[in-house]
Amino acid sequence: MRPRRKKWTKELLQSSQFVISNDYPVVQWSKQFPAKTIHLEIGAGKGDYWQGMASLYPDDLWVALEKNDTVAGIAIKKMETSFAHLKNAKLLQVDAIDLPKIFAPHEVDVIHLNFSDPWPKSRHEKRRLTSPEFQAIYLDLLTKDGLVIQKTDNVSLFNYSLVAMNDNFKLIEVDVDFRSQPHDEDVFTEYEQKFHGFGQPIFRAVYQRRSEIE
Amino acid sequence: MRPRRKKWTKELLQSSQFVISNDYPVVQWSKQFPAKTIHLEIGAGKGDYWQGMASLYPDDLWVALEKNDTVAGIAIKKMETSFAHLKNAKLLQVDAIDLPKIFAPHEVDVIHLNFSDPWPKSRHEKRRLTSPEFQAIYLDLLTKDGLVIQKTDNVSLFNYSLVAMNDNFKLIEVDVDFRSQPHDEDVFTEYEQKFHGFGQPIFRAVYQRRSEIE
Repeated sequence: MRPRRKKWTKELLQSSQFVISNDYPVVQWSKQFPAKTIHLEIGAGKGDYWQGMASLYPDDLWVALEKNDTVAGIAIKKMETSFAHLKNAKLLQVDAIDLPKIFAPHEVDVIHLNFSDPWPKSRHEKRRLTSPEFQAIYLDLLTKDGLVIQKTDNVSLFNYSLVAMNDNFKLIEVDVDFRSQPHDEDVFTEYEQKFHGFGQPIFRAVYQRRSEIE
Repeated sequence: MRPRRKKWTKELLQSSQFVISNDYPVVQWSKQFPAKTIHLEIGAGKGDYWQGMASLYPDDLWVALEKNDTVAGIAIKKMETSFAHLKNAKLLQVDAIDLPKIFAPHEVDVIHLNFSDPWPKSRHEKRRLTSPEFQAIYLDLLTKDGLVIQKTDNVSLFNYSLVAMNDNFKLIEVDVDFRSQPHDEDVFTEYEQKFHGFGQPIFRAVYQRRSEIE
């Protein structure tokens, strides 16, 4: 459920140091923001994972994508309040389809897909973030050994993704009950804890690009 | 847990029409037992799946492997009592390692691995029925488009298998909660129903060989 539109959102998104404007041209992020590793979370929602991971890994750059302005506003408000010191977290309020306009080719090390919309109807397959259409975008963005890391509690989306990703990516790690063990290296958000608390297993897969960079 | 050794086992295994003797030479099963499709279940246990599937698909040949003689004896006793009319079910009391001695190359269409021993210790990896060692055997046995179908309730074995099988097999179907929907095409054994009843999801994967036959 999306929260109601909030009035303060627009101004905050325009003024925050954490927001990269929509019309940001393609740049070498790696030059602009020196970082060991560039992470990109697509569909960051209220930003808990993004903020937690940026705190946990201060030497890496954490870029969040969230196209809904109200949700992005909530993420940024929390960022300004509780994580104002972070220099390694940036948010883009754009659609994932527009990623190639924003990133130069092959500079993203890891793409994170957390609890993405499952789009259960087959006529909406293209909108799933692991569809062939999105895979093509990821191949343009990712480095030679680049990864896509997916977490979800949705059985159908996970089943779909494991098979669909197979064409362009190699499954290198998988866990069909990721939160049954502690994983201190990976932020366990409140949202995720809630689902896990209902007895719902959390699924996780790590996919690595198969193809060489042309 | 294995049942106690039973006295009647040996004689029954020697006399039953359902048992193919250990020293059976390599034969063209497809000629000996004409069938649309040849299925091989490795580790058939007490035989419920094997018997159910042979009843459900009378035009296919169903070969079961069970090396433990007491367990194999129980499977055969039930077969003789309740399924004596079946002509398309055979059991071999051999170790999976010896399969190439028993099957000519590339005549098995589908290998079934149901609730296999997970062998959780890494020093026992070779014994897992989805290890590279067993994959090599399966590649020798399977037809050009041959399949391995795995079902398990064991998280670690399933995680291991999805990654390990990837080298030689392509994942073409997967379900991380197979029994949440009815699957009348696939026998739901009592053993499996018991685990499912405890709220344990049943995992299923269908792997297809990648390599051409040399």
